[in-house]
Amino acid sequence: MSIVAVGSIAFDSVATPAGRAENILGGSCTYFALAASFFTKVRVVAVVGEDFTGEHEAVFTKRGIDLRGVEHAKGKTFRWGGQYLDSLNEAKTDFTELNVFENFQPRIPPEYQNSEFLFLGNIHPALQASVRLELNGVRLTGGDTMNFWIRGTPGELLKTLKLIDVLLINDTETKMLAGDPNLPRAAQKVLALGPRALVIKHGEYGATIFFREGAFGIGRHPFRAPALPIDEVTDPTGAGDSFAGGFMGYIASAGVLNREVLKRALFYGGVMGSFAVERFGTERLQSLTREEIDARFQVFRELTHLE
Amino acid sequence: MSIVAVGSIAFDSVATPAGRAENILGGSCTYFALAASFFTKVRVVAVVGEDFTGEHEAVFTKRGIDLRGVEHAKGKTFRWGGQYLDSLNEAKTDFTELNVFENFQPRIPPEYQNSEFLFLGNIHPALQASVRLELNGVRLTGGDTMNFWIRGTPGELLKTLKLIDVLLINDTETKMLAGDPNLPRAAQKVLALGPRALVIKHGEYGATIFFREGAFGIGRHPFRAPALPIDEVTDPTGAGDSFAGGFMGYIASAGVLNREVLKRALFYGGVMGSFAVERFGTERLQSLTREEIDARFQVFRELTHLE
Repeated sequence: MSIVAVGSIAFDSVATPAGRAENILGGSCTYFALAASFFTKVRVVAVVGEDFTGEHEAVFTKRGIDLRGVEHAKGKTFRWGGQYLDSLNEAKTDFTELNVFENFQPRIPPEYQNSEFLFLGNIHPALQASVRLELNGVRLTGGDTMNFWIRGTPGELLKTLKLIDVLLINDTETKMLAGDPNLPRAAQKVLALGPRALVIKHGEYGATIFFREGAFGIGRHPFRAPALPIDEVTDPTGAGDSFAGGFMGYIASAGVLNREVLKRALFYGGVMGSFAVERFGTERLQSLTREEIDARFQVFRELTHLE
Repeated sequence: MSIVAVGSIAFDSVATPAGRAENILGGSCTYFALAASFFTKVRVVAVVGEDFTGEHEAVFTKRGIDLRGVEHAKGKTFRWGGQYLDSLNEAKTDFTELNVFENFQPRIPPEYQNSEFLFLGNIHPALQASVRLELNGVRLTGGDTMNFWIRGTPGELLKTLKLIDVLLINDTETKMLAGDPNLPRAAQKVLALGPRALVIKHGEYGATIFFREGAFGIGRHPFRAPALPIDEVTDPTGAGDSFAGGFMGYIASAGVLNREVLKRALFYGGVMGSFAVERFGTERLQSLTREEIDARFQVFRELTHLE
């Protein structure tokens, strides 16, 4: 099964306690696509500038990722600079240069139309909605958002939430979106806004999935996957997008959608997030193998498994 | 098997988003003893003042808790006031009146000498050490500490850590004790200070146990137990002590000490902590049944269990 991913491709400059990296390939769509590519066929919808070279393209194509939906625009690719010197859990943004991303209008190639799965990366909710409405055949839509849209475009976001089956956000975003500081209560309020399931990413503590009553025919008991206690976090950038890639990619590969598949997807999400942070940028995802992924899946499983 | 618990008995005044309660029975030893009493015989070492009445005593004796080690001193019982109005994860202390606790010198009744397990609640590390050295027959010692002792009495604390088998502290305390902001790395540094195992309590995200190489003959892979996503947290006071009570109480009841017992103990710790916060003070622990405990244990297990 194939999954369409829409979002940003960017060049990032990051500083972490482990060091610095300048103008490295990044962006929500990049991390998502690389992580998902270990499980399923991925088709990207994004925009890049003239500084996006064949070398950058090869990072995607080596993983079999379809780039026919990537628009090459005049100008520079989206650039972001940030640091994690005070806290590995939250980036402090140094600069954001939207560049070609400023006027991004996602265009879906006709070849993508038969895709069964869709992931709406963290872009303007109106653009997310337009992509979802254009792809009529999708069986399941995952989506991300952030505080910027929750505060800045709440009306458009509320419309988009009704088009998303599984929303993937973090603790802070959940509380902000619900206007409730109690996480499980906030989760129920977010589910009432549209999504059938809500994945809350807890960073180093893993993630929890909450279900709307009757969603996917599987009841409403939440499920949690832990994250691995990692000795060395080199660069937290892209952890959430890699999580989403592992989660959605595994679902797309599973063929059926039931509680056990969603549980395993949550574990695979944590696995991909944990690999992403081991090196700067996409370096670790580029060198990864499916065998390494499944070995870590077992480690995660053992981490909480009672006989 | 029986467990000796040394720590504070207090009267707490707390304000939370759910309301206020004045001068209610609390203290680390109280929560620990009540939680552990569902699993094993508990013997308390503590000090109370003249305001500690038969009614308070009955809270313990109804659960079969041995109070022969409780000294009745002239003056008032230890009092603490705090609030959780900004954050349920951290108390803001309004006042601390040590009262009879100021000159507390733990005295172990001869009848306690045959106890196999010991829990050193969060008191001055020199007092913790003196209790441990007086009880020669214990097979396993658990202990707690806090930022106040880590900063204030590091020399005494380092000595005490060599006498503790399992240290139970939270994320912040672990990082502070190790002087390292990376949690898994900090865990290894704390283990190098003496304890054979370290339980790090993550609040609403559960807890992780880290093992020293070869500890208990079970290898060094960490294990994590999640906490339940709780809809209503009424009063977080005592959650950590109740966790310790469930953890140590289950170990004391198990007869053997192996990896599976320690894993289950971690789950039971989370279960007891999650009950404690449901009502003010010790109210929920007083009304609890073993059947409710085991039902929630199953819920916790299901929360992360893959087939």
